[in-house]
Amino acid sequence: MAPLAVSMGDPAGIGPETIAKAWDARATHALPPFFAIGDVRAIETVWQGPITRIAAPAEAAAAFADALPVLSVSDAGGITPGQPDVDGARCAIESLEVAVGVTRSGAASALVTGPVSKVELYRIGFTHPGQTEFVAERCGIARENAVMMLAGPTLRVVPITTHVALAAVPQLITVELILAKARATARGLQRNFGIEHPRLAFAGLNPHAGESGAIGREEIDVLEPAIAQLVEEGIDAVGPMAADSMFHARARAQYDAAMCLYHDQALIPLKALHFDEGVNMTLGLPIVRTSPDHGTAFGIAGTGTAEPGAMIAAIRLAGTAAARRASQ
Amino acid sequence: MAPLAVSMGDPAGIGPETIAKAWDARATHALPPFFAIGDVRAIETVWQGPITRIAAPAEAAAAFADALPVLSVSDAGGITPGQPDVDGARCAIESLEVAVGVTRSGAASALVTGPVSKVELYRIGFTHPGQTEFVAERCGIARENAVMMLAGPTLRVVPITTHVALAAVPQLITVELILAKARATARGLQRNFGIEHPRLAFAGLNPHAGESGAIGREEIDVLEPAIAQLVEEGIDAVGPMAADSMFHARARAQYDAAMCLYHDQALIPLKALHFDEGVNMTLGLPIVRTSPDHGTAFGIAGTGTAEPGAMIAAIRLAGTAAARRASQ
Repeated sequence: MAPLAVSMGDPAGIGPETIAKAWDARATHALPPFFAIGDVRAIETVWQGPITRIAAPAEAAAAFADALPVLSVSDAGGITPGQPDVDGARCAIESLEVAVGVTRSGAASALVTGPVSKVELYRIGFTHPGQTEFVAERCGIARENAVMMLAGPTLRVVPITTHVALAAVPQLITVELILAKARATARGLQRNFGIEHPRLAFAGLNPHAGESGAIGREEIDVLEPAIAQLVEEGIDAVGPMAADSMFHARARAQYDAAMCLYHDQALIPLKALHFDEGVNMTLGLPIVRTSPDHGTAFGIAGTGTAEPGAMIAAIRLAGTAAARRASQ
Repeated sequence: MAPLAVSMGDPAGIGPETIAKAWDARATHALPPFFAIGDVRAIETVWQGPITRIAAPAEAAAAFADALPVLSVSDAGGITPGQPDVDGARCAIESLEVAVGVTRSGAASALVTGPVSKVELYRIGFTHPGQTEFVAERCGIARENAVMMLAGPTLRVVPITTHVALAAVPQLITVELILAKARATARGLQRNFGIEHPRLAFAGLNPHAGESGAIGREEIDVLEPAIAQLVEEGIDAVGPMAADSMFHARARAQYDAAMCLYHDQALIPLKALHFDEGVNMTLGLPIVRTSPDHGTAFGIAGTGTAEPGAMIAAIRLAGTAAARRASQ
């Protein structure tokens, strides 16, 4: 299997440090060979370990045992951890662009993306809501068919709507959107996780899933018809369930993914349970793509205290999924 | 200290069994003396332990060591666990009414309420949204000044709005409502938990707390002014915070109560972390009132499998709070 491509994200964030620490932990976590893409100085600034500059992904596998392979794509200007600037934002985008390219070409077996700063990216004209949409576009996939799934050791969640105001959520939840997201999720669980008959559990929008229409009708008008349609298609879909009663251990054991209707409904339980281990995986793409479920953490960048757990989990999950896809 | 009054809730639910099991566990958990209020046959039907019928709360303390004291208030008709009926609903209301009365009179030091079925209560003309509002009215307290707090071993949450459709939440969140709930919460944490300077952490309404207005303005228009006002009053209030990043262990250690804007924002993390141990406590009342944070569970009533953990926690917390208030 080809090595994994890991884009560094913003060079002033904790991406470089967490990638380097993941390399340190490669044996403990049995990580597959990977290489970083970005400004090599961003890693040298925060880490004393061995680095091998590579000119092409094919060199990464041989180098990986003894040093962190880095494909250096640009000069980000001066790099000061914790102090983002437009040069760093340009470097982040270039790293991402190259990482997507080598993964689509097959030179890398999967894509792992380090954290970027949307504020910085918007300053240089980035027009996508986030890296997920950028990657989907580069892969020629419509947004509604690309699914953001957050995975921790005991829970996977899919937010059906993401970065929109809560007041807009009720109108955005349509049967069509739910069907598109659920189909991509079921397929993604098969391809990436090897789950032959994925079980999808839908959260209700309202307290107690609306109590039969007493406190909100979205469950009756939208969710029930969508779930019935999915069942008719042979997808194991249940719900809508009371959202507050579906995230304890016994409930989580009953499904493979919780289909949630808005950002916090999905992210609150995932991060309450698995804050340092959450992996963001994009389903519905022709490539495997994961990222650690945290931001740039500029506040602690350069202090050596960044937790690499989520980056390690993102690399491991990407490797497992790529191996599974390769065997299909 | 006077014994605690525990209303049985619906006689066909798991209230009677969990109360009896709590008595079984009185020594292990160092529970204060309490007595049950309801139809004594509801307990006899599901439990073989010793029962002492009492005629008045004053008899409970002496009886408690050797038997579960029960103040039997009504004949609920035939009792079949798992099969609620209107007789049972009437019994539940009468138990609650008596339990509130003996607590307000001081004959009981605190009120613990067993789970009722709202569907059954509505059939017999009950007009309150739930037991909390009923108890508040009987105590002469306006609804907005009665605060529902859910408490588990490592997290306390306050839903500022409760059983309303999600679509209605953005309009309901006003500065005035937030101030009323926060003041009652701060005072309640002082009186019931002995926290001299309570720290309140407010969740944002929108993803990432709105990202400075980019995805929703409620944080700027409503939450920030309300929090500023609270700080001016000397209340330690922080936020609005990204709701998905405030419920992991390190974040929870930074506050005494998470002030949430809607039902599931509060209940999802509480139940994800503490499903079997959650206690519902009403703050802002002249009496101490708690209840286990679960329903009647008619589906398992009578099978002997009901978990008493939440009832035990509700009784213990009520006892601790009553003792603390008595010492103030």
